[in-house]
Amino acid sequence: MQPDTLHRWPLNAWYQAAWAHEIGDTPFARTLLGEPVVLFRDRNGHAHALEDRCCHRATPLSLGDVVEAGLQCGYHGLIFDGGGRCVEIPGQDTIPPQARVRSYPVVEQQEMIWIWPGDPDAADERLIIDYPYHDDHANWPHRHGRFHVQCSYLLMIDNLMDMTHVPYIHRNTIGAGVPEEQVRATMDVTRTEAGVHYIRWMTDTTPPPAYIQGAGWPADVKVDRWQEFEFIAPGTVTQWTGALETGCGALENRDQPGGISIRNWHGVTPESCSSCHYFWAPANGHRPDDAQATEALYTAIAATLREDIEFLERQQETWGRDPERPMVDIKHDAALKPARRAVERMIEAESGLATAAE
Amino acid sequence: MQPDTLHRWPLNAWYQAAWAHEIGDTPFARTLLGEPVVLFRDRNGHAHALEDRCCHRATPLSLGDVVEAGLQCGYHGLIFDGGGRCVEIPGQDTIPPQARVRSYPVVEQQEMIWIWPGDPDAADERLIIDYPYHDDHANWPHRHGRFHVQCSYLLMIDNLMDMTHVPYIHRNTIGAGVPEEQVRATMDVTRTEAGVHYIRWMTDTTPPPAYIQGAGWPADVKVDRWQEFEFIAPGTVTQWTGALETGCGALENRDQPGGISIRNWHGVTPESCSSCHYFWAPANGHRPDDAQATEALYTAIAATLREDIEFLERQQETWGRDPERPMVDIKHDAALKPARRAVERMIEAESGLATAAE
Amino acid sequence: MQPDTLHRWPLNAWYQAAWAHEIGDTPFARTLLGEPVVLFRDRNGHAHALEDRCCHRATPLSLGDVVEAGLQCGYHGLIFDGGGRCVEIPGQDTIPPQARVRSYPVVEQQEMIWIWPGDPDAADERLIIDYPYHDDHANWPHRHGRFHVQCSYLLMIDNLMDMTHVPYIHRNTIGAGVPEEQVRATMDVTRTEAGVHYIRWMTDTTPPPAYIQGAGWPADVKVDRWQEFEFIAPGTVTQWTGALETGCGALENRDQPGGISIRNWHGVTPESCSSCHYFWAPANGHRPDDAQATEALYTAIAATLREDIEFLERQQETWGRDPERPMVDIKHDAALKPARRAVERMIEAESGLATAAE
Repeated sequence: MQPDTLHRWPLNAWYQAAWAHEIGDTPFARTLLGEPVVLFRDRNGHAHALEDRCCHRATPLSLGDVVEAGLQCGYHGLIFDGGGRCVEIPGQDTIPPQARVRSYPVVEQQEMIWIWPGDPDAADERLIIDYPYHDDHANWPHRHGRFHVQCSYLLMIDNLMDMTHVPYIHRNTIGAGVPEEQVRATMDVTRTEAGVHYIRWMTDTTPPPAYIQGAGWPADVKVDRWQEFEFIAPGTVTQWTGALETGCGALENRDQPGGISIRNWHGVTPESCSSCHYFWAPANGHRPDDAQATEALYTAIAATLREDIEFLERQQETWGRDPERPMVDIKHDAALKPARRAVERMIEAESGLATAAE
Repeated sequence: MQPDTLHRWPLNAWYQAAWAHEIGDTPFARTLLGEPVVLFRDRNGHAHALEDRCCHRATPLSLGDVVEAGLQCGYHGLIFDGGGRCVEIPGQDTIPPQARVRSYPVVEQQEMIWIWPGDPDAADERLIIDYPYHDDHANWPHRHGRFHVQCSYLLMIDNLMDMTHVPYIHRNTIGAGVPEEQVRATMDVTRTEAGVHYIRWMTDTTPPPAYIQGAGWPADVKVDRWQEFEFIAPGTVTQWTGALETGCGALENRDQPGGISIRNWHGVTPESCSSCHYFWAPANGHRPDDAQATEALYTAIAATLREDIEFLERQQETWGRDPERPMVDIKHDAALKPARRAVERMIEAESGLATAAE
Repeated sequence: MQPDTLHRWPLNAWYQAAWAHEIGDTPFARTLLGEPVVLFRDRNGHAHALEDRCCHRATPLSLGDVVEAGLQCGYHGLIFDGGGRCVEIPGQDTIPPQARVRSYPVVEQQEMIWIWPGDPDAADERLIIDYPYHDDHANWPHRHGRFHVQCSYLLMIDNLMDMTHVPYIHRNTIGAGVPEEQVRATMDVTRTEAGVHYIRWMTDTTPPPAYIQGAGWPADVKVDRWQEFEFIAPGTVTQWTGALETGCGALENRDQPGGISIRNWHGVTPESCSSCHYFWAPANGHRPDDAQATEALYTAIAATLREDIEFLERQQETWGRDPERPMVDIKHDAALKPARRAVERMIEAESGLATAAE
C-alpha cells in the first residue's frame, strides 16, 4: 500500500452516480471520481454516462442537447451515442474511428444510477448492492437527499462507522442528554467479506423525545434501542435504527409493530480527494401510512447531517494538511478501522492486478 | 516545438494592449502576456507602458500618480520617465543607474494602443496591422468593446476561425433556423504569410431577421451572404460580413450600396495561460448616418459574443485539464488548423533564434 | 542564509498571539506562524495554546468546549489539559501515552498573550518585551486594534521602518501638505542588539490640523515634532510620536505637559508567508482624562493604517511574484535594512544551531 492510499479510491467498483430522478432528458454534469462526467437519458429512457469532453475541441458535452441519435455537442454539433461513438459530424460524410468519447458502464436500479469508473469488462452488475426498500414505497416510504460535501469520502465513512460521536457533535440537538449512556452502549462489530457490520444496543433506556413522539409512547417509557450499520466498500452504508418497548423481546425480534423503525441509505461517492457526493434516504418503517411522519423524519435527518458535515469539512482542512500523519486509535474505532481496511484491500487488489499484468 | 506550446505565445510581436481611450492621465494597470503592466499618458499625451513594479520596494506603480516628470510611485515618491529610468528619488541627490523599471515599446495607432513584449530592438512599427476603418468614423461608425475572458487566447481564435459553430452555440439566438444551410456554406481557405484568410458564401438564401430589418428588405427577399475573416498571428482577426440582394452580383463586387456591410475588429491578447483580453469593434458600413443602427449593431454583437464566451470559458476548464491531449480534427477545422500553425511558427522562430544565440 | 529566508520567520522567539481580552472561556482558533492553533482559558483563567488538531481523528479542537479538566474535542469527547496531555477518552479506561497534542509555551503579560513556536525548553519569559504603558490606563489610556493583513509580516515591518512614505501613501489624508518637509526631517538610526531604533525630528514646523486641535494650539503655532520607533525582532515595533511648542526645549526633554504625546504598540505576527496578524494600540498621553480624545485617536490611527494596508496588500501581490528578485535601495532605507537584517540574524542563528546539532 502506497502512502497516498488515503487520497485514493478503488476504480473497479460500482459507485452511486446520482438518484434516478436527477437524470432527465437534458444533459447532467457531475464530477465523479475526479473525472468530469455527463449523464443523460436517451430517447428510450436509458441512462448513459460519457466523459464530459467532446473529442473534437474538448468542449463539455453537457452544454449540448439530447437528440434522437444521442448527445449532441453544443459547439459544432457532433453527435455521440450512449456508447461514446460519434454517429454524426455536421458537414462531413465519413466519421473517423477515433471520433469517440469515453463511456462508462451505467446501471439504473432501485431508484439509483450506478457508475463503474474502472475496466468496463470487469463491470459485473451482480456486484451492485441490492436494496429492496427503495422499491417498496408502501412499507418504506422515503425521500432522497443529497449533499455536496467538502471532505474526503473516507471521512464521511469514518463518521458513519462510529456513533459515539452523537453526544458530542450533536450535543445541542439529538445527542443532548447523558453522554455516558451513548458511550456505554454495547457494540458488536463483525468484519464481512465486503466491509464491516456493527450493531449497538442501548437496553432499558429512555428514548429521545423525537422517538417518544414518533411512536406515541408515554413519557416515562423505557425502550431497547438499536443502531445497526453495514459498510459495503467502497462507498455504501446501510443503516437500520429503531427502538421497541422494553420487555417485548427486541433483541430476539426487531420486526414488530409499534416503536420506531428507520432504514437509512448512505451512498458516498468521491468527487475529488477532498470532496464527495453524499446520497441519503431515510425510510419510515414504523408509520408508513403517515406522509407527514416521513417528511418529518427527512427533515430531522437532514438537520443532523448538516451538523456532521459542518464538522467534517473543518476536519478535512486539518486532516488534509497532512493526511499521512499518524492518528491515535481509540477503542471506539472498532468499526472504523476495518472499514478503512476494506477500502485499502480493494485498492491493493487493483494494484496487484496492475503489477501482475505488467 | 515543445509540448507546452499551446500555453504560450510569441513575444516578438505587437499585441493590442488597450483601446486608446482607456489610457488617460491616471495610471492604468493591466496584466498583459503574463506580466503586470502599468500604462499611462505623460503630460504631452504620449502613451507609455512600464512594468507595474517599482524597483525600490516592488510596489505597483499603478498606485501612484502621473506627474510632470513621469510616473511617481505612491509609496516613497520615486519618479520614472516613460523609458523606465528613475528621474527622482525624494531626499536623495544622486540616482543610481540600476534604479529603473522595465519599459515596453508602445505605439498608438488607429484608436488602439499596441505593446511589444519581446526584444525592444526588434520592435518594428511597420509590423503593426493597418486598419483604416477605425480612423474613418464617417463611413464606418463603430463603438469599442472589451471582454475579459477566462480562456486561452487560442480558444478565442479557434472560435473565430470556424463559423459552423453559429447554428449550435447561437442556436437560440442568431443561429436559429436550419443548421444545414450554415453548415453547407461554401468555404474558401487561403493560408497567408501571417496567418489564414477564409470566406464563406451562402448564396440565394434567406437572411436572418436582423439583416432584413437592417437593410429594409421585403420579408421574402433572397440574398447572397458572405462571412470573410482574416487571422493575422498572433492575436488579430479582421472580419467583413454582409449580404446583398441575389442578382446584383455580390460575388463579383461587394462594395455596393444597399444590403448589409459590417466590419468587425477582433484583438485577442493573452493575459495568462488561461485568460485573455478580447477587444472588438463592429463598424456599421451599410447605414453609416444612422447612429441608432450603429448602437443596435454593437448591442447585438455584444450579446452574441457573450454566448461564445460562456461556452469558451467552460471549454477552457475541460481543455485546460490536459491541453496536450489529442483532439480529433474535422473538415470544418480547415481555417482553425493553419491559424494555430501560424502561431506555432512564430514561437518556433523565436526558439530557433534563442537556440542559435546560445 | 538560504534564498527563501524572506518567506520565513524565527521559531525561537515570542510572538503576540492575541490581545488578552480575545481569549475567553470558549476555544479560539487562530493560524499563527503557519500552524493552526487553538487558544483557551482553563477554569482557573490561565491561557493555553494547543495545536488545533485532535490526535485521534485530526479534528480541530476549536470545535469543542472548555471543560473542568481542559479542552474537550467536539467529535468524540477526548479531553486534553493545557499541556496537551489527553486526560480522558470516553468509553475507555486507559489512555495511551501517545495520546497528546502539541502545546505551545504561552505567557499573558500587559494585556497580551505571547506564544513561543520554537523549542519549548528555550522559551525564556524574560525575553518578552516589557511594555508598561498597557498596564497604565491612568496615564496612557488606549484601545486595542487588530487587522488581518494579506501581506508578509516583513512588508508590514518595512512600512513601520520608513516614515517617508507618509506624504505619499497618506497624501490625501494625514500626509497632505508639503512632502519635502517630511522627506527632509532629520533621521537618527541606531542599530540595537535586538533590532533598530530611529528618531526623526521636524523642528520649527507647522503641525497637522489634528495636532493643533488635539493640543489646543493656536493656528499659527510652530512646533518641534518627533517620530521615534524601535523595532525589536522579529515582530514588535514601539512608537512614540509627539510635538511640543517650539522654544520649550523638546529636543532635551519630551516629557512635558501640553502638546501631543502618543505611544503606539505594533505587534506583527506571521500567519503565513503572505499574511499576518497586526495588533496595534495607540495610547493617548497628552489628554489622558479625555476619553473622547482617546477614542478619536484610535479612529484616526485605524483610518491611517487602512491606507497602509491597502497598499501593502497590493505590494504583496507584486513582490510575492518573485520575492528573491533584487530591489534597489535608497537612502531612506536606513532603518528598514538593519531591521530586515536583525530578523535574518535570528534565522541564521537557528540554522546554525540546527546544523551544529546534526
